[in-house]
Amino acid sequence: MNNFEQQFEQSFRNRSVLITGGLGFIGSNLARRLVDFGAKVTIVDSLVPEYGGNRFNVAGVEDRLDINIADVRDPHSLQVLVQGQDYLFNLAGQTSHLDSMKDPYADLEINCKAQLSILEACRHHNPDISLVFASTRQIYGRPKQLPVDENHLLQPVDVNGINKMAGEWYHILYHNTYGIRASALRLTNTYGPRMRIKDDRQTFLGVWVRLLLAGEPFEVWGGEQLRDFTYVDDAVQALMLSVTNPHAAGRVFNLGGDKPVSLLDLAAALIAANDDQGKYVTRQFPGERKRIDIGHYYADDRLIRETLGWNPTVSLEQGLQLTLDYFRRHLKEYL
Amino acid sequence: MNNFEQQFEQSFRNRSVLITGGLGFIGSNLARRLVDFGAKVTIVDSLVPEYGGNRFNVAGVEDRLDINIADVRDPHSLQVLVQGQDYLFNLAGQTSHLDSMKDPYADLEINCKAQLSILEACRHHNPDISLVFASTRQIYGRPKQLPVDENHLLQPVDVNGINKMAGEWYHILYHNTYGIRASALRLTNTYGPRMRIKDDRQTFLGVWVRLLLAGEPFEVWGGEQLRDFTYVDDAVQALMLSVTNPHAAGRVFNLGGDKPVSLLDLAAALIAANDDQGKYVTRQFPGERKRIDIGHYYADDRLIRETLGWNPTVSLEQGLQLTLDYFRRHLKEYL
Repeated sequence: MNNFEQQFEQSFRNRSVLITGGLGFIGSNLARRLVDFGAKVTIVDSLVPEYGGNRFNVAGVEDRLDINIADVRDPHSLQVLVQGQDYLFNLAGQTSHLDSMKDPYADLEINCKAQLSILEACRHHNPDISLVFASTRQIYGRPKQLPVDENHLLQPVDVNGINKMAGEWYHILYHNTYGIRASALRLTNTYGPRMRIKDDRQTFLGVWVRLLLAGEPFEVWGGEQLRDFTYVDDAVQALMLSVTNPHAAGRVFNLGGDKPVSLLDLAAALIAANDDQGKYVTRQFPGERKRIDIGHYYADDRLIRETLGWNPTVSLEQGLQLTLDYFRRHLKEYL
Repeated sequence: MNNFEQQFEQSFRNRSVLITGGLGFIGSNLARRLVDFGAKVTIVDSLVPEYGGNRFNVAGVEDRLDINIADVRDPHSLQVLVQGQDYLFNLAGQTSHLDSMKDPYADLEINCKAQLSILEACRHHNPDISLVFASTRQIYGRPKQLPVDENHLLQPVDVNGINKMAGEWYHILYHNTYGIRASALRLTNTYGPRMRIKDDRQTFLGVWVRLLLAGEPFEVWGGEQLRDFTYVDDAVQALMLSVTNPHAAGRVFNLGGDKPVSLLDLAAALIAANDDQGKYVTRQFPGERKRIDIGHYYADDRLIRETLGWNPTVSLEQGLQLTLDYFRRHLKEYL
């Protein structure tokens, strides 16, 4: 993200930044970048075991940031924590599709009610804050045409998608109605160091990496589906652009990646990145997964490229290598 | 609704029907029809004063139906009440845009959480029920093109719109995932006997009617905006078609009306329907209303006409006369 280094240095040095979900995968990678730019970072995380938070994610920078254990469902702590912040990266969320079908109420509390209370806190206690919300391509459901741009209908296929759709729209509404500088990124499959690999709550790719490094075959469900993948550093760049660029306010942007690949090609690329070691088996979708499968998906991400100058800098091959390198070194912290 | 009389008679005679929000405007008109068709009707209503419930709405038929006071936010009573029902008309909702901005959490509880718990109750305790959800054209926000069909993007302009959007999608999801026969109608301005006229929580037209009958001038905000209006009997017909026609399951339908009219033309038509008595003043939109005004709106409702055979039978002129006749006779019950 060379071309933005100087700009980010100016934007973040000595500025106060709050990251909800900051011990999670994307949040912790973001926190580490922001600390390097000289920001005063406060992480909010619940460390609920099923979600993505992991203290090891900030290993080495613990002393350069504040960690505040709190659940975004608690409106009281958030109301205090947003005060005095220049930027808010709003990344806390329940992201498991299956969990959302099993306990739709918990998903609603985190992805809707907590979002409302964060926005109310901003509105009443810090209306000049600039924030970005981590939304998801999951809210599009099964694409009607490809690539999917931001004007595609939203037809979510699970409770999580419906609630994330609402959570995203609260942010846009609070911009349109109250002038809060909020934007949303519809993330696609994000991967990289510090992602959750102990289960598939964040991404199936985590499970692949874990099994590969354990020397076990991983499973490819279906295989022909096309998907796009964003390396975490590129997602972090997009988040930083969103809170600092005034043209982002009130907007929703797709994030894409290097290029669409089929899951079979991804599996092959992952094994290639592992020095050609490892294997996978293909199988049909399990029943409960089939219902929420969306077929092919890849984003049209021209809007963020044109509006904010975002440009992914890490190829899929590089990204997979960096990911495997990281987890080879730190595997035991993620099991 | 002549052509459907026989069909409805067959569908509803001796069948058990639950109506949430059944003491409200649309629910009570529906309940009265269903009782005439020989249905065993149970009304659920919270009678929360700010919402639409009014015991007088079922005057004359109280002995032919059951009234169960309960709030849809109480999952326990709904879990019991859905059992043994053939049809559920899911009409309870918070509909005030301004209230939703003042207390977004209450709106979330009613329009999202309660909807989830109703659907969970159906799924676990009565998966063969057929239900319809009263959604709203408000979820489209400011139309990008006219008339607005069901493929128009949803860009709600208030918390109520966002939550109704989620509530609608829960219904579609529970159909797609669990096979529950659920559908949704995106209602536009519905008007007629038994609507709320004491304030504008349901429709501005209620306030117009109240002031007109009190001999006071009513206010037209803006005036050039085009809108469409559904007479309540036609909305009731659409609801009955939705739960009885198997082609409705999993679908979302716009309801429109006779023809689009400007608010100025509507004001003139209302005065004409009042034997040319009465007057109005035009004024600019008040500030807090302006923010959530959506400009012109009228529906493309061909989908429900073609799929379910819906056809509005009451012209705007007739409908306004019937409305004024009703409130002239029963005004004191609605103040």
